[in-house]
Order: sequence, then structure tokens, then C-alpha cells
Amino acid sequence: MSAALRELHDSLLSEEGGTLATYIPELARVDPALFGLALATLDGRVHAAGDADVPFTLQSISKPFVYARALADLGLEAVLSRVGAEPSGEAFNAISLEPGTGRPSNPMVNAGAILTTSLVSGDGPAARFERIRDTLSAFAGRRLELDEAVLASELETGDRNRALAYLMRNAGALRCEVDEALDVYFRQCALLATAEDVAVMAATLANGGVNPRTKEAVVPGPVAEHVLALMASCGMYDGAGEWLLRVGLPAKSGVSGGIVAVSPGQFGIGLFSPRLDVRGNSVRGVAASRVLAERFQLHLMHYPGRTAPVIARSGDARTLRSRRLRRRAERDVLHQHGGAIHLRALQGDIEFAAAESVLQSLGALPGKARWLVLELEGVTRLHPIAARMLDAAVAELGGRGIAVVTGDVHRRGLLPHASVEHASVEEAQEECEDALLARHGALLSPDTVLAWEAHDAWAALDEEARAALAAALPVRAYGRGERVLAQDGEELFLVLSGRVGLYGPGVRGRRLGSAGPGTAVQRPGQAGGGLVAELSTSGRVLGAAQQERLERERPRVLARLWKWLAGVGRE
Amino acid sequence: MSAALRELHDSLLSEEGGTLATYIPELARVDPALFGLALATLDGRVHAAGDADVPFTLQSISKPFVYARALADLGLEAVLSRVGAEPSGEAFNAISLEPGTGRPSNPMVNAGAILTTSLVSGDGPAARFERIRDTLSAFAGRRLELDEAVLASELETGDRNRALAYLMRNAGALRCEVDEALDVYFRQCALLATAEDVAVMAATLANGGVNPRTKEAVVPGPVAEHVLALMASCGMYDGAGEWLLRVGLPAKSGVSGGIVAVSPGQFGIGLFSPRLDVRGNSVRGVAASRVLAERFQLHLMHYPGRTAPVIARSGDARTLRSRRLRRRAERDVLHQHGGAIHLRALQGDIEFAAAESVLQSLGALPGKARWLVLELEGVTRLHPIAARMLDAAVAELGGRGIAVVTGDVHRRGLLPHASVEHASVEEAQEECEDALLARHGALLSPDTVLAWEAHDAWAALDEEARAALAAALPVRAYGRGERVLAQDGEELFLVLSGRVGLYGPGVRGRRLGSAGPGTAVQRPGQAGGGLVAELSTSGRVLGAAQQERLERERPRVLARLWKWLAGVGRE
Repeated sequence: MSAALRELHDSLLSEEGGTLATYIPELARVDPALFGLALATLDGRVHAAGDADVPFTLQSISKPFVYARALADLGLEAVLSRVGAEPSGEAFNAISLEPGTGRPSNPMVNAGAILTTSLVSGDGPAARFERIRDTLSAFAGRRLELDEAVLASELETGDRNRALAYLMRNAGALRCEVDEALDVYFRQCALLATAEDVAVMAATLANGGVNPRTKEAVVPGPVAEHVLALMASCGMYDGAGEWLLRVGLPAKSGVSGGIVAVSPGQFGIGLFSPRLDVRGNSVRGVAASRVLAERFQLHLMHYPGRTAPVIARSGDARTLRSRRLRRRAERDVLHQHGGAIHLRALQGDIEFAAAESVLQSLGALPGKARWLVLELEGVTRLHPIAARMLDAAVAELGGRGIAVVTGDVHRRGLLPHASVEHASVEEAQEECEDALLARHGALLSPDTVLAWEAHDAWAALDEEARAALAAALPVRAYGRGERVLAQDGEELFLVLSGRVGLYGPGVRGRRLGSAGPGTAVQRPGQAGGGLVAELSTSGRVLGAAQQERLERERPRVLARLWKWLAGVGRE
Repeated sequence: MSAALRELHDSLLSEEGGTLATYIPELARVDPALFGLALATLDGRVHAAGDADVPFTLQSISKPFVYARALADLGLEAVLSRVGAEPSGEAFNAISLEPGTGRPSNPMVNAGAILTTSLVSGDGPAARFERIRDTLSAFAGRRLELDEAVLASELETGDRNRALAYLMRNAGALRCEVDEALDVYFRQCALLATAEDVAVMAATLANGGVNPRTKEAVVPGPVAEHVLALMASCGMYDGAGEWLLRVGLPAKSGVSGGIVAVSPGQFGIGLFSPRLDVRGNSVRGVAASRVLAERFQLHLMHYPGRTAPVIARSGDARTLRSRRLRRRAERDVLHQHGGAIHLRALQGDIEFAAAESVLQSLGALPGKARWLVLELEGVTRLHPIAARMLDAAVAELGGRGIAVVTGDVHRRGLLPHASVEHASVEEAQEECEDALLARHGALLSPDTVLAWEAHDAWAALDEEARAALAAALPVRAYGRGERVLAQDGEELFLVLSGRVGLYGPGVRGRRLGSAGPGTAVQRPGQAGGGLVAELSTSGRVLGAAQQERLERERPRVLARLWKWLAGVGRE
């Protein structure tokens, strides 16, 4: 990315069109060759090229951020009643006041910005300015300093802004002293920031108002939303419409040569090059924005192509099973009645339209469905509205007698109407299978111990083997949480009650599955992993010594047992 | 969804504010109580409530679609040179022409629309109108009819539009006869559509210009992008800025009471209710749009919250292995040198910013990496720019000596620089493992037959068993594609050369894994599934008869063999 920015920077160095701003004399003293680009991502990284660390005064780039402060302080309606939201279609310093009320057309032209600044909470101009400086600093993630020379120059030459303020005061729109309003406004314009700072400020807007580097929530999400909408419609002065058409990004330019642009939900861009076009926008900044938007397909209205289906997998428990090892009696019931348990695995970014299509699928669940396992692990983003829609559907399914069970601990609480939430989809599936088995009388209660004669291995043995094994295999009981087959020389555990969890290698090994009564587990191989009693568990253990004895005395018994085991979990 | 629309419809019935348009007398004769809502999704479904099937004349709703036609016919630059893209901040019938050139400010006000209509290709007004009607019909997915009564009424009373046209002609902006331009324009305004039609027209714009019902590509994607940008900045006349701020959707209203609104990439909305506010927008339509946008969080600038990481899984072949059963010699090499094969599983919607973060991760691959398996199965959308960025990174990794291998047949061709593309990630992993084994001299060439003494089972047997089994197990060879263990009574296949694929039940069973030389496969259980030779394959077969004989004569041999098998694939 940094390389792409450097390449873009170098390719635009030959662009020497435009002229320095002159209406603030101090701005005419800046090096016209400066050119910096920066891009800040929402995970807090900043890429930069050229003079991205050279500070310049924010000028009009301050406007959207001060507007954000005013919106957060007063609320949208109160602010809209004082400053409009309509593009004026005129230059930045136009006198576009509403006839009668003097209400300026929008907060991105000077009149509207002066009025917006006056709306920020604060006891007097000094406090108000500090509040604004604190806000802009929080957007940037570092304390922004004031350029006293530029400020002095603005104060000296800001007659047109004084005129605008007096007109607004005359009309009753501006309700504080003109000097007080202008003092704060000139100061905010003279705050110094670099292209990198501006990129982070933009990324904070892109990130719902949360600074992606400091993680500070600078303004609430809806405020960021409103500021971006206003930048989209009014940000680029009288070229705003064409900007939105060609570049398609909310943006704001300043007369010192800076541009802030935002790719909502993606990142922020800061640009700085002092030579301006006739509209007062940085020539290289506009050119760089166009190239970035086109090369990286950032246009707000860009259609990114078809998405994969939101439902990645779907089926019922006749084919989609948990990884619980189950005895034949249970497998037979699941095979026959598994149509009562449905699974839908969702994936990707689920917004309104995707949720709507999930709802269609859930509405079509067959009448005999009783459980729905909703797998959310592949969901990369569940928009709040989609979560609400899904939860409403879950509640409705509940009314139809279908219990909805979700996995994935990270999504816990998103679907309050889901009847049970598990740490993983695997466990959710196991739970539903258990419930179905219970309904058909095929589930052993946790404290029932399966008779040895009812163990699946029994059926695989002949009379001789049955008699021999019953005597050879000692019974062992494990408390919940105990390691199974923990002693040296223990090779095989035939489960008669409870449940054994199978975990991958490592201290926090992933749960790979589990084994219930009537099945068996072996000691893990050299790759490690663990067997843990997930309930009070009992069964019969085959140790190395018994195995040797059987091998000597009754090898056929052992052959039968191992053959049975070689098939467990493979049917 | 339909229920939500009906509820919204009912809740707004009591809203009886506004008045019928009067400037076209025929429009004043419509039933003011009519109210229809429709929403069309990108998978082609249409939800509707109220009078969504009542036709009304499109009026200004035709403008964005005719603009789309002109853009597709002439290109953006040619159209922009004749019609601007700046919001006029004035009413729909304002005289906002550029001084000197007479260029209208944008195609959404009447002057700009009349000029845009004149730009559409066509030999004379009749052909031009038919081209426009064909286009709007293609957007709607059905042939749109003309309301002759409204047309007559427009023709009679369109003096203001005539004045606008004459002014433009006088300034040299309009280059055809005034009557000719107006004739076509009045006709396009008098085309009849329902709220359902309008929703589909909007969905076509939301869908990159492709009608989601008929699948017809009505206009190219960039044209849809430009039209949406223009609707966002200029669609709602002098209330466009506040509309974008509050509702945040590209939209266009018409004087007959219709509104078309678009949620880009999600769906289209059509609204119809004839009573208008002072700005000429449908009162109920505006109210319904606001409720929809707010309730379903459709605002363009809405920040949907953090997304899950784009890299769902990452690791190397020491822990992330294919499901190929491999002999111990191969497993040992993978365990020791698996750090040369890296895997990154991507997920979700991958746009610029997500791709950028993948690039960071790929840049940090360790120096000893030689292969990268890029898993794309969980990717729901790979934006073209993200595909290009990833492919550039793949090319760069190639330069560093790292081969990139992808799975997922559906993404084939997206990353031309990936050295090999496989039908599945599983196969990609197997291929990389094979390459690593070959580098370490541990891979058998396809035509090498493993000596029986070198088979893993051999090591698990004692002297007696080795001698007994070599005699008892006949050698069997399968041609590529042949079913393995196809004969009744065959129970076990010990692979000595080639490869056996393990497939799930069904004719097109999923490939579950594979088994190479030195390993073994059993006959599938009752649940079915299949074993298929994926290469010329040979090995030794244990049949039921041999097994019975061994059980009688040498049960200990059998016990050893089955015990070994019970552990295969479980370490």
C-alpha cells in the first residue's frame, strides 16, 4: 500500500498547475512544491508518501469536525434549525443565507461554519475553542497546535468573514458577538495538522466516530453518519455534485491545500498540496483523490459484483451430524427422525437484504422441523438490523414449536430469542440430537449406566469373547473434568455412562468431538490431545497388561474387539 | 418483509397531508388516497403493500433512467459537457442554466432532463422515444405503456417547459427543435408504471445495471454508479441535501406522487402516493422512505460495526494438514519441515481495505516459507480491486520463491498468478505437501510400488504375523477411476502405490480425504460412500475368507492388524 501511495505521489509531482491561496497572506508563503498523501486503515495503520508529516493549517477541513462536535452537543434537529444542509452550488465564501431568517445554507461554506462554531457548547470563546481543539485532537489522536502566524494573518484579513457574520447577526441567525464567533472560528482554521493526522481524522469518521488508533469514541456513530452525508452533498463547494459523480467519496477541502476524504467503513485519506484550482481545491489533491478512487474502486456507488449465498450450508440431522460418537441405537433414531433437526450455516456480511433472504429460507422449514441449529461462525459482520430481523424470526419459529439453537460464543446475546446458546455449533448440534433422542426414548439419562451386554462392542463379539472380556476389563469411573486414560498403559476406554470429550493437542486444545455410552475412545497418539470426562463418566478399560494376556490366551477376542474399534466413527 | 411493508403502509394511511399536483390537470383527477409500496431484492423477489400494482405516470422518475440511457450512449464526458452535475438548490422547474452556455445545472431538474432526452441516440423523435421506452421497459422488466390522457394534458399545459427549452435553444445548449425535444420528453413522463415496476427499476440500478428478474444488462455498471451518485446529490430537488442527511439513499421523486429510491447493492424501493408537499415530493412517500431507511438502517453512511478478521485461519503444515492419510515417513517430514507450507483462510466480503490487511499478513510470511495455500471458500465476495491486489501480491511472493496455490473451483481464474489452482483447498494442501515431501526425498513417485516390508502395517506386526500376512493377502491393482474394494467380502485395502480417494455417500459424494502408500482404507460402512483409485493404484486386499481363516488359524496376527488400523488417521 505504501508503495502504491509513493508511486501515486511521484506520478503527480510533475503536476504544477494551480496557485497558492492569497486571501490569507501567510498562506502565500508556504512552499508550493509540498505534496503529502496518507491513508489510515480502520485497524489503526497509517500509510504515507511524500510530505505527509509536514503540518499545515486545517482551514476549512476543520468544518466537518466542528460540525460533528455541534451535532454531538446539540442533536441533529437543533443544529438543522440553525444551519441548513443544502448545497449552495456556490463558492466557499458565498453569502448564501436563507431570506428572512439568515440561516446559512450549510455548515461547509464559511457562513454556515462560523455559525456552527458558535453552537459548540462552552462558557465563552476560550472554553469553546478549547473544546473544539480537544475534539479535533481526539479525531487526530494527538494534540493539535495553533499556527499563531497564520492566525494573526487571518485576523487581519478576514473582513469578508466579518461581513458574513454581521449579516447573520443582523438577521438574528448568529446569536453571539461577531468578534467572539470569529475569534473561535479563525483559531479552529489555524490549527496545524499533517496529512497523516488528517487521514486518521477521516478514518475516525469512517469508523463510526471511534478513533482507530486510540480507540476513543470521539462522537457517536449517528453523528459520524450525518457528517459524512453532509460532506458528500456539500463538501467540495460548487463542485460537490461533480465530485460525488466522479470520485464518489465524502470529502472536504481547505484553502491551505488540504483535502480530507473518507471511504466509509474502509479508511480515511489525508492529502496536502498547496496549489489550488479556481474553485479553491488542491490541484494535486483532487488529482490524487480521483486516481485513488478509480484505482481502488472506492466510489460510494460502486457495485462490487454478486456475493456468495448467505446460507453456506443447509440440511438436516439425517446427513449433517455432530461429531459425537453414538451407539447404534442412537444412530438409528437420528437416521430415521433426523429430519426434525435442521441446520443453516450463514456466512459473510449480513445486512438487511441478506437477512431478508435468510428469513425466506427459515419460513420454508418443513412442518416436522422441531429444532434449528443456526451456525454463525462464518458470519463476518452481523449488522444490528440483521440481528434484530433474525431474532424476530427466531421468536416466530418458537411460536411454531421450533427451538432455535446457536453456537459461537462470540455472538452470544445477539439473538435473545434463541432458546439455548452454546460455545460452539458442535455442542449446539449435540444438544439438539440429545433432545431428539430423548423424545424417542433413545437417550440414556446422565446417571444411567449402560449394561455391558448393551454396549455396541458386545454385538461384535462372539460368546467366548463376551465372557472373556467381561472378566478382563476393569470398570473405571471418572469425575467431571477428569482426564480419561490418564494412567500409563491404558489403551482403550469403552464408555458405559456419561460422556468423554476429545480435544486437540495443546493446553487449550480445540474440542474435536465427544463419545457417549456404547462407544469407545483410544489413548491419543503421539501427536497428543486429550480425553476429558465432560460428565460423571464410567466404562471399562483395556490396559496393556490385559491386552498382552488376551493376545497370548485369547487372540481371537482381541481381533474382534480391535476390528470393531477400527470401524467406530467411520460409518 | 411483506408483513413489515404492510404494517408500514397501514401506519401511514392516516397521513393525509399534502395536495395533488395541479400543473398537469390530468394528475389532479387521480384518487388522492392511493398508497403503494414495493421493495425488490437483488435475487429477484418483489415485496409489496397497498396499491403497489396501480399504474401511475413516471413523470420525473423517468429522468435518472433516461440519463442512464444517455450516459450509456454517449459516455460521461460527452454528457457532462452538455448537462452539469451540480445540485441547483432550487425547485424542479427552476431556470438554472449556466450563464453564457445555457448548460443546465443537472439532469434532474426539468431543463437538464429535456436536454438529456435530446441526447439519446435515435433517428428522429419517434425512434428516440422508442429507444427510451425500450430502456425504461428493460429497467422494469416489462413493456411500459403510455397514458395518452396525461400526455395530452402535458402537451396542453407544458408552457414552462417550453420556455426552458427555448431558453436553452437560444443559448445554443439545446441543439434540436424545441417541439421535437419536448415531444419525446412529455412522452417519457407519461409512461405508466406501478410501485412494483419502479422497485424493479431501482433494483436494476442497485444491481450494477442488471435487471435482477430478467437478468438483462440494461446499462453498464459504471453508468449505474454515475446515475446513483447523481440521484444522491440532485435527486430530491431543493431538499436533496437534507434528504441525503436524513434518509441517506439515492432517490428521485415525481410530481405524480412516485418516489424511486435505491439501496446500492441491496435493493430497490418504489413508492406511490399522489399527495405532495410544497417541494413536490410525495408526503407519504417521503415519510415511508424515512421509516424504511431508519428501521432497516439503509443510510449510505451507516457504519455497520466492526467486521470479523478477514483471515479466519492461519498456520503452517506442522499443524494444518490435508486429510490425506500418509505413512509415518511422510508424516515425520511434514512434522519437521511443515513450516515451509503456510495456509491462510480468508472469509467474508473482501474489498480494498480487507485486501490491504491480507497483504500485510502475506508480507510477513517467514523466510523459509515456500508454499502458500490461499483458502477462498469462506469468501463471500471478492471485489475486483481486491482480486487484483491479491494477485499482485501472489506475483510478488512468486518472486520471493513462494508458490501460491488456491482451492475452490468457483474462484478459478481470479488470481492468474497463483501457480496452481485446484478443485478444493484440500487438494491444494495435498499438492503442496507432496511437493515438500518430494524436496525431502520422502515422496514415492506414482509408479513406485512400496515394498510390503516398507508398509506401515509391517512395523506393527511381529515376525509370525509378517510371514502369515504376506502369504494371505493377495495383491490387487486398480486403474485410475476404478472403485476400490468393489467386490463383496473385501474388507481392507493396504495401499502400496497410487492413491485412493474417500468420498461421501451419494452419486456426487463430497471428497472426504485420500489415502496414500503405506496406509489403508476399509470398506465403507452402511452409511455408504465410496473409495476410488485417483491414480493407478495397487495394494494388498484382506477378504472375508482370508480373515476367517486367519481368525481360526492365527487370530493374533489379525488382532495386531486391526489394532494398527484402529489407530490409522487418529494420530
